[in-house]
Amino acid sequence: MKLYTFAPAPNPRRVHMFLAEKGIEVEEVEVAIRDGANLAPAYEAVNSLRTVPVLELDDGQKITESVAICRYFEALQPEPALFGTTPLEKAMIENWHRRVELEGMQAVAEALRNTSPRFEDRAIAGPRNFAQIPALAERGFARLGFWFEDLNARLKDSHFVAGKTFSMADISAYITVNFARMVKTQPDESLQHLARWRAGIDARPSSRVGT
Amino acid sequence: MKLYTFAPAPNPRRVHMFLAEKGIEVEEVEVAIRDGANLAPAYEAVNSLRTVPVLELDDGQKITESVAICRYFEALQPEPALFGTTPLEKAMIENWHRRVELEGMQAVAEALRNTSPRFEDRAIAGPRNFAQIPALAERGFARLGFWFEDLNARLKDSHFVAGKTFSMADISAYITVNFARMVKTQPDESLQHLARWRAGIDARPSSRVGT
Repeated sequence: MKLYTFAPAPNPRRVHMFLAEKGIEVEEVEVAIRDGANLAPAYEAVNSLRTVPVLELDDGQKITESVAICRYFEALQPEPALFGTTPLEKAMIENWHRRVELEGMQAVAEALRNTSPRFEDRAIAGPRNFAQIPALAERGFARLGFWFEDLNARLKDSHFVAGKTFSMADISAYITVNFARMVKTQPDESLQHLARWRAGIDARPSSRVGT
Repeated sequence: MKLYTFAPAPNPRRVHMFLAEKGIEVEEVEVAIRDGANLAPAYEAVNSLRTVPVLELDDGQKITESVAICRYFEALQPEPALFGTTPLEKAMIENWHRRVELEGMQAVAEALRNTSPRFEDRAIAGPRNFAQIPALAERGFARLGFWFEDLNARLKDSHFVAGKTFSMADISAYITVNFARMVKTQPDESLQHLARWRAGIDARPSSRVGT
């Protein structure tokens, strides 16, 4: 199998960090998205959605969503479990992971893609063009501030985002906090529980993948 | 355990349809969201996010995301599998389910919550108020039209949304197509593969839950 990717971008980076935690290596094909390689005609045959990453299996089937790629590897190699083992862990990781994506990752993406000249007419990743909406960028910045506060509150009560063990929810949250640098926004120093958690993840070798 | 719910709303309805497919019954507490019961002070202790559904376990722990509730029951009672059995099925169901949510469900939600007077200042579900953004509603309607076309194209090649078997991706897609009635938008009759698939789901007893 083969992973079409551009490791520094946030979605691919989630997959790379997940694979590093699992100790899995996959053949990679770099797609230079900063040069627009994903929008070039040649990439259409790889992924008509124009996104990275894409996992191509040996029979040609493709998985085009980052978290679906991670779930594929979780099922192939369950240990260490990053989506939970018991029913309650599985539920809580899904619960917190969704909140990270909806409240954090989406907020950064809305702030970035609706302001940066690089994303003019590309406010949504995918095969179709959408104009930037300034009010949506503004809302994204506001939501990002709330998300930092809410994440800090959660990490006051919980060692990791979804509970006692490191999970996919930590991977997506950590990459989102770093991704927020792209919109020049970082958590206030007073958010000490978030800072404690972040320092713990910084110390994991997987955190350096793609940087 | 106890499910706080309002069955006709799209997110709770996903859970009810999922439970009906599994043949699982859960004690229910109705939260009259159309009367604002979720925003009343009494509901804060149940869910500070102000959303339904919420699954409260016997030890008081709560799962507040619909799909996390479904995954909890999938782990407790794996058959019939609605999130897949093999690694590839699990990946493909996650893949298509995410696309349904991001491209379809989110489009309807954006169209509805940014136009309806009922959602003035409530453009995002949750504990905080956000103003409506007319341009986001407009984009939601445009995306919804594209989603119907893309779903039809997918269902030309695939019996169900994620492959050969009925899955969570069908539940979310079906409920989204029905939910689009709330913004007075339905798939064009020319989208015959979508219509074939929808008629098949209409015939399942689980489709009538919450209606």
